[in-house]
Amino acid sequence: MPMIHVEMFAGRTEEQKRDLVRELTDTFVRTAGGTPESVQIVLTDVDKGNWASAGTLFSDKSKG
Amino acid sequence: MPMIHVEMFAGRTEEQKRDLVRELTDTFVRTAGGTPESVQIVLTDVDKGNWASAGTLFSDKSKG
Amino acid sequence: MPMIHVEMFAGRTEEQKRDLVRELTDTFVRTAGGTPESVQIVLTDVDKGNWASAGTLFSDKSKG
Amino acid sequence: MPMIHVEMFAGRTEEQKRDLVRELTDTFVRTAGGTPESVQIVLTDVDKGNWASAGTLFSDKSKG
Amino acid sequence: MPMIHVEMFAGRTEEQKRDLVRELTDTFVRTAGGTPESVQIVLTDVDKGNWASAGTLFSDKSKG
Amino acid sequence: MPMIHVEMFAGRTEEQKRDLVRELTDTFVRTAGGTPESVQIVLTDVDKGNWASAGTLFSDKSKG
Repeated sequence: MPMIHVEMFAGRTEEQKRDLVRELTDTFVRTAGGTPESVQIVLTDVDKGNWASAGTLFSDKSKG
Repeated sequence: MPMIHVEMFAGRTEEQKRDLVRELTDTFVRTAGGTPESVQIVLTDVDKGNWASAGTLFSDKSKG
Repeated sequence: MPMIHVEMFAGRTEEQKRDLVRELTDTFVRTAGGTPESVQIVLTDVDKGNWASAGTLFSDKSKG
Repeated sequence: MPMIHVEMFAGRTEEQKRDLVRELTDTFVRTAGGTPESVQIVLTDVDKGNWASAGTLFSDKSKG
Repeated sequence: MPMIHVEMFAGRTEEQKRDLVRELTDTFVRTAGGTPESVQIVLTDVDKGNWASAGTLFSDKSKG
Repeated sequence: MPMIHVEMFAGRTEEQKRDLVRELTDTFVRTAGGTPESVQIVLTDVDKGNWASAGTLFSDKSKG
């Protein structure tokens, strides 16, 4: 039943995502309980032009 | 004022989405009250490569 | 696999919530496909002091 | 530490997004406290075919 | 139609929230367009025991 | 910069949450890259009366 939403910069490979969801699921079950079958994970790839910290888009920071 | 967010696999047709939002709105008002005008719905199409259960991406399951 | 998040004002009864989730699930399956077992719904009760439209908290509107 | 998520119709320019995140950050710090460095903002561009109010997709309203 | 979700530490006063939503709404309209009436904001008060950065709950950091 | 949101049933202990956020952070960095400092996690405790699958609230299932 746990739902895990991960927002991260776009650009991870399929292999990284495969490892990420497998290990996040293992980690959840090991530390918080429940069964792997109950864990749902949704990944969101966010462009640097849609993410800001300190009032500046990351697309502008990387130009810096 | 209710906000409904629906995350689902990409691939629904425009017609399915049209029916879905009309009927979700009707359902909300009939069971929980309020007016149709106040109901906002945002649909998110999620790729199978960004959704996992039981530690496995759905893009990998469908290869199985 | 669909995940439905509903944000609404606090105050619905257990009976209203029971009807809401049953009928939202039926509606999703009927219009967008999939199985009832795959539909997860999370309800969030939001206080009027934490919800605003037009720049005004609903807790202040109702005082109006 | 505040996280601000903004869902809005797709179509804003890079310049509008740059102004939006800078000023939302300033606004948060001025009214609620904290430091600009701690404020994270994620923008989500939503297509009119994925957003509904009053049971109707905005892509259908604009055809009206 | 824009929806703004703000997650922040619990503890802001009603007055701070009132100012925050009024000014966030003004800021959105001034920089991204639209009308104040269309802007919905939901505030979420998060306890320090439910928020972490760098792998540490803020409730533990403040014990430091 | 990654933001991880975890929705789970209420009832985890402080110790479980402490382990969960530490290990989720490690897992993210090890599989997807980035630095631990950039990882933010928000936990949401959801009551069984606000979570449903297959059209039934978990508060009703556990009565079954």
